[in-house]
Amino acid sequence: MIVILKQNTDQMQLDRLITWLKNSGVDVHTSVGQSQTILGLIGNTQHIDIDLISQLDIVEDVRRVQEPYKNANRKFHPNDTVIKVNENVSIGGGNLTLIAGPCSVESEEQICAIAEAVKKSGATMLRGGAYKPRTSPYSFQGLRTEGLRLLSLAKQHTGLPIVTEIMDISQLDGFGDVDVIQVGARNMQNFELLKALGTTRKPILLKRGLSSTYEELLMSAEYIMAGGNDQVMLCERGIRTFETYTRNTLDVAAIPVLKQLSHLPVIIDPSHSAGKSALVDPLSCAAVAAGADGLIIEVHNDPAHALCDGPQSIKPEVFDALAKKLAVIKGAISK
Amino acid sequence: MIVILKQNTDQMQLDRLITWLKNSGVDVHTSVGQSQTILGLIGNTQHIDIDLISQLDIVEDVRRVQEPYKNANRKFHPNDTVIKVNENVSIGGGNLTLIAGPCSVESEEQICAIAEAVKKSGATMLRGGAYKPRTSPYSFQGLRTEGLRLLSLAKQHTGLPIVTEIMDISQLDGFGDVDVIQVGARNMQNFELLKALGTTRKPILLKRGLSSTYEELLMSAEYIMAGGNDQVMLCERGIRTFETYTRNTLDVAAIPVLKQLSHLPVIIDPSHSAGKSALVDPLSCAAVAAGADGLIIEVHNDPAHALCDGPQSIKPEVFDALAKKLAVIKGAISK
Amino acid sequence: MIVILKQNTDQMQLDRLITWLKNSGVDVHTSVGQSQTILGLIGNTQHIDIDLISQLDIVEDVRRVQEPYKNANRKFHPNDTVIKVNENVSIGGGNLTLIAGPCSVESEEQICAIAEAVKKSGATMLRGGAYKPRTSPYSFQGLRTEGLRLLSLAKQHTGLPIVTEIMDISQLDGFGDVDVIQVGARNMQNFELLKALGTTRKPILLKRGLSSTYEELLMSAEYIMAGGNDQVMLCERGIRTFETYTRNTLDVAAIPVLKQLSHLPVIIDPSHSAGKSALVDPLSCAAVAAGADGLIIEVHNDPAHALCDGPQSIKPEVFDALAKKLAVIKGAISK
Amino acid sequence: MIVILKQNTDQMQLDRLITWLKNSGVDVHTSVGQSQTILGLIGNTQHIDIDLISQLDIVEDVRRVQEPYKNANRKFHPNDTVIKVNENVSIGGGNLTLIAGPCSVESEEQICAIAEAVKKSGATMLRGGAYKPRTSPYSFQGLRTEGLRLLSLAKQHTGLPIVTEIMDISQLDGFGDVDVIQVGARNMQNFELLKALGTTRKPILLKRGLSSTYEELLMSAEYIMAGGNDQVMLCERGIRTFETYTRNTLDVAAIPVLKQLSHLPVIIDPSHSAGKSALVDPLSCAAVAAGADGLIIEVHNDPAHALCDGPQSIKPEVFDALAKKLAVIKGAISK
Repeated sequence: MIVILKQNTDQMQLDRLITWLKNSGVDVHTSVGQSQTILGLIGNTQHIDIDLISQLDIVEDVRRVQEPYKNANRKFHPNDTVIKVNENVSIGGGNLTLIAGPCSVESEEQICAIAEAVKKSGATMLRGGAYKPRTSPYSFQGLRTEGLRLLSLAKQHTGLPIVTEIMDISQLDGFGDVDVIQVGARNMQNFELLKALGTTRKPILLKRGLSSTYEELLMSAEYIMAGGNDQVMLCERGIRTFETYTRNTLDVAAIPVLKQLSHLPVIIDPSHSAGKSALVDPLSCAAVAAGADGLIIEVHNDPAHALCDGPQSIKPEVFDALAKKLAVIKGAISK
Repeated sequence: MIVILKQNTDQMQLDRLITWLKNSGVDVHTSVGQSQTILGLIGNTQHIDIDLISQLDIVEDVRRVQEPYKNANRKFHPNDTVIKVNENVSIGGGNLTLIAGPCSVESEEQICAIAEAVKKSGATMLRGGAYKPRTSPYSFQGLRTEGLRLLSLAKQHTGLPIVTEIMDISQLDGFGDVDVIQVGARNMQNFELLKALGTTRKPILLKRGLSSTYEELLMSAEYIMAGGNDQVMLCERGIRTFETYTRNTLDVAAIPVLKQLSHLPVIIDPSHSAGKSALVDPLSCAAVAAGADGLIIEVHNDPAHALCDGPQSIKPEVFDALAKKLAVIKGAISK
Repeated sequence: MIVILKQNTDQMQLDRLITWLKNSGVDVHTSVGQSQTILGLIGNTQHIDIDLISQLDIVEDVRRVQEPYKNANRKFHPNDTVIKVNENVSIGGGNLTLIAGPCSVESEEQICAIAEAVKKSGATMLRGGAYKPRTSPYSFQGLRTEGLRLLSLAKQHTGLPIVTEIMDISQLDGFGDVDVIQVGARNMQNFELLKALGTTRKPILLKRGLSSTYEELLMSAEYIMAGGNDQVMLCERGIRTFETYTRNTLDVAAIPVLKQLSHLPVIIDPSHSAGKSALVDPLSCAAVAAGADGLIIEVHNDPAHALCDGPQSIKPEVFDALAKKLAVIKGAISK
Repeated sequence: MIVILKQNTDQMQLDRLITWLKNSGVDVHTSVGQSQTILGLIGNTQHIDIDLISQLDIVEDVRRVQEPYKNANRKFHPNDTVIKVNENVSIGGGNLTLIAGPCSVESEEQICAIAEAVKKSGATMLRGGAYKPRTSPYSFQGLRTEGLRLLSLAKQHTGLPIVTEIMDISQLDGFGDVDVIQVGARNMQNFELLKALGTTRKPILLKRGLSSTYEELLMSAEYIMAGGNDQVMLCERGIRTFETYTRNTLDVAAIPVLKQLSHLPVIIDPSHSAGKSALVDPLSCAAVAAGADGLIIEVHNDPAHALCDGPQSIKPEVFDALAKKLAVIKGAISK
């Protein structure tokens, strides 16, 4: 950590600050220049409160040198985390995992038909919304517990492990048969929920908030991991920018950046990134080419009747063709 | 609602769409042009699913004409909502309400001293964090239930009603003595929490999310109001932009815009907007000049020892001088 | 174009508006509803001034249905534009064009060595900055006319056509030997420059502004094309968002979107997108996988001595390996 | 400047770097910690190339401590710059300057009538567009030289000094009678234009780019000042954010921040900030309350016939009432 002092610092105040810092357990190196004095704090600065120092009269700025996340940090865990969902499905470590399914679970017939279709095309996990975060209170809110029941049926039917979104801690009891719990973008900084998930031992698919930085995403992962659950996947699903033609802007650079900063697997959601079904194919190809560990894609057997998010779903036959192309791209970059 | 059709639309598909729309209870006016056909949907279009129509093969675009919020909409409630917190404190309707207090509740001595100080300067409500949303799991998370207890003591002591943040539904039971429940920016789209607050009869201070549009903020208010609780205040607290010199960017235009679109009171948080104590004064002045119904300001008796958010807190004497200036500005724009 | 009227419109004002619109040469279809009246304007609305109508007392909103760009619009030119730079190099139409070279031209030795190296690896065009837009007046501003002279030498030497940036109309005379003129992101809306380039018959590489929408980019292309020069390439080079870890955020969805809206070739600049050399490889792969017609990449033979933009340049051997991988990805998506 | 080294740095490379830095004329203070070594560069680091150092193998990050602008920096010029436009009009130093006039100059009658009206209401400078930057090549581009002629007539007529926008260096010859030259937001980083304006001795009104940071704005001012022209006013006119209800988002914090970082006057453009005439009043009040040195406001005598930007213009009588209110607010904050 670096503390930049204001010009013409009062020496007594400076001495007090240095003493206080040393008592906090860090070494302090002072660089005195003509117009500026800088303190370099060396040692374990994780418990030094930046805000506290920032507001001192003699301090102009404080900058962190080390990343504030530790469990999620590749520096301390050089090897990729591989998340074993079941004996057949592992995420990370060179695999390309395709997670597919409808936006919302609507009926047993629907979820089972889609599950079978995407399994045939190479998907190894089924997605489907039971609890649905909707901007409007007047929109369909999901089948909720009934949706979880139908997902379980589809899992029994096809053997595909299931991933579905949790919206509140109180729903956690119903997630016993869920293999991967998804935290939506709007809940990425619902810290009470993250803490609760840290006490479970289920893999978590953590979506990046609409305007969350890489560091904030990693800090939210850190919330889960600090609780003892290190099975976290990071999911980029488009960020909010000034461009409104697409619903969100897929930040494809998030893939190599997050994989460099962290050892956790990175999953891309091309469906929500753009909000247009015609863009799912090129964005999926881009994500795999950039090194994504997996994709989570909305597939619907009858888009014209989807209860929500229809415009971004693709049909099973489109998914099938896409899956084949993605395998070739994965091969190209793995050489 | 307007449906813009693709060029060279298939007439049979178009007829089917029109029949379906009419059966949904709306009138359809067709405008056929050389290169484009447009359908105007007239009547109660609130239950027409835009997503569903958007994805039809013959549809190029669908645009909503009416706002999707109803309870929060000034068109249907022309008069200002005035929220009566107690017999002395009413928010909205021409009042300028000053809410002040520390970022975090730290001790009985601290919260009572600040409460007394800000009351003397004209604050009519006390703020203070018991549950604290922090980016890092390693930062101070608030005194939690003990913080709520200390707030109650300060309320007894000074008579000031209290506003404090809720972070999870499970905390609601402890909020019995809280006068106004705050929903933080990160929870603005925690829809399960909003629904739960809609069933209470306590006033809610709803903070705008870091990258939430006016419409999304109003839709979140709508979630609470749809549950029967129409005591909602909207709070602008800075949005996230490309500029990083300030922590957030105060969107001062939100004040006249929200007051035009909605009848709900608009409160400004100048402390979190900028994240720098030196900016609290000019931003507060700007907010009042732009027509804000109130301000929520962080005040600390000893900023150097604040446990969080220190850089954005001002001292009681600064708050006192500010309060006097704000009264003059309020007078200037009320003439 | 759709005109949404305010509630309780004055009939006389409405009649006057309709008469005026019809006299402007468009048909007007009126849809009268319970709470809202909508006018659909049919015909050639390109010369109707939206701003003029928007400000009328009886008008609530005006929305354009047709895109405001015509020459750049794929609807009116369904086939891809292919730009023939010379008898060997054509951009668009299924080709993958690699443009490579240093950020700045520094010396004859430097530019010729890099030109030879990138040619060997498959680049078919040479890039290099003679005029350099720098944020600081104290930074190196490019070799200017001497830089253009050295680029010509490298062109003679290798046969590679050259692309370099223009910063002001007054520099145009010196661009006689330049094959493709680049307009930088900061000049995307330098309309006087765009008009001047519209009078030339040289291909233009038009970079998207840091916060320019797709439509604004296409309107800037329209400025050039309206002058009679239809040889325009669109270049996505990263947009400005809240994320500051990368210099800019590559908007990879721009590729399929721009290719759908327009018939012009789309080039990606992975070097400026991220501002970090380690990200050039994954972003290049992503761009090709998403369907880019070409890439413009900074390559430097001795990054440690680059005069500007060093962190985002890669070495020739890295470029060579990348070029091979890109060919395989291009093959995968072309099947 | 601070150089943060990678873990396990090679000692020989480090020694070479330190030697090189010392030869560049700066002192180097080394802080060696357990996991991180930091170099503090002390002295005149303005000519040290950050990019160059960043790309060295042993360097993790480089951070600037001092601002890169010097002429515009308040640290080196503590007193406010006051720009004397003529014997009656001075900008900065406690004055509140109102600049008003139409978006575009349209006719002698129009510009003279508006000039007289706004003068009566207290405006001390006349604005009006002769050269108009328009997104579409098909929109009205301004009366150009004829517009400049009409502005001169209005100046003769009323005695009001005039401010108008330049779009290209080639237009500069016609600006002899212009008192303040405006650089539009889209040209804020048109560095060749800034350099040319640096050689004039006319005051420059420099508008902030749509997505330019404070530092970038100040660096653009530095371009002009480095050429010897220190008569620069900074103008905030709304930035581009995710919110699209308003055309731009007025960043009101820019006022205190820019006045703290720099000694240059800060002018606010409330008309372009929001793009809606109803918001001109509250945004103007906010700007003055936050400490702006002046406002530049679009006023039109007949908004229904404005050739461009009509929705954001107000009528003279609205301007008159606003001017009175602003004087009271200015009084309130000056006490």
